[in-house]
Amino acid sequence: MSPLDTVAGGLPTLDYSHPILYFEDFTEGQIIELGSLAPLTEEAIIAFARQWDPQPFHLDPVAAKDSIYGGLIASGWQTALLTMRLQVDNLLNETDGQGSPGVENIRFRKPVRAGERLAARFTVLVAEPSASRPTLGKVLGRTELLDDAGAVVYQMDGWTLIGRRPPDG
Amino acid sequence: MSPLDTVAGGLPTLDYSHPILYFEDFTEGQIIELGSLAPLTEEAIIAFARQWDPQPFHLDPVAAKDSIYGGLIASGWQTALLTMRLQVDNLLNETDGQGSPGVENIRFRKPVRAGERLAARFTVLVAEPSASRPTLGKVLGRTELLDDAGAVVYQMDGWTLIGRRPPDG
Repeated sequence: MSPLDTVAGGLPTLDYSHPILYFEDFTEGQIIELGSLAPLTEEAIIAFARQWDPQPFHLDPVAAKDSIYGGLIASGWQTALLTMRLQVDNLLNETDGQGSPGVENIRFRKPVRAGERLAARFTVLVAEPSASRPTLGKVLGRTELLDDAGAVVYQMDGWTLIGRRPPDG
Repeated sequence: MSPLDTVAGGLPTLDYSHPILYFEDFTEGQIIELGSLAPLTEEAIIAFARQWDPQPFHLDPVAAKDSIYGGLIASGWQTALLTMRLQVDNLLNETDGQGSPGVENIRFRKPVRAGERLAARFTVLVAEPSASRPTLGKVLGRTELLDDAGAVVYQMDGWTLIGRRPPDG
């Protein structure tokens, strides 16, 4: 079993019986597949918008038709959070992750609409020891969400603090 | 009445009886106060983490004690979304906003814990006409969340597309 194994139904599981991933397990250029998002329904797009981002083109199919998008689109924050959840379940919670100082370059490249199938991947851009904390490393990962045609619809470059392998690890 | 007026209870209201804000109403260096967040409870921090960002230091006060944060902290995404909601209610929905191509430089400068009082402000960094769409302008705004001592705990630089004032506006 690798730390990134999934259970039969495809749901990620955290298996504490094997070593977790440490900073030393990440190398620049490494690509990690994060799995797929369940396609959004119009109802889910509207419910998220009501709570967090009530702009007309996320909230109201009629108003959205008159917008530059020509129809209802998901809040970019909904796309970002769904992708983050996938990344936590399928990667970060398999590591000795210690949070994040920030995120660079969030790009909403294509609007996300109801019914689209999207898959995520994580590419290690930078892996370097922390200058201030000797027990931590810093990983900058580009997370991309791709549609069925392979086009990137969303991306972010996020920093993660990850524990270095302890001497007895 | 200005477009940013609020009703008696402090809740923002969209007053369609006066002109909304267009691209031309934004100038570089302009500062707009966005109001305050209701302080988070531990329960709200945990509930958000369960749904979107289930890392131990957002989810479990005991595990959080052993983390580099020394206690439970809110997911940075929760801080980001609460701030976004404030920005939509108190600014974007008063403009002819048309969505966003992306966000730069999200910084989680200080952990956010239960009970903290935080206020948001928006500073216009860039305001320029869209090169590709003559009816739109692009505004890059720095959104900052400040604590009672005036320290920035969270910031993001977000692009917003805003309609240009029509000839009859």
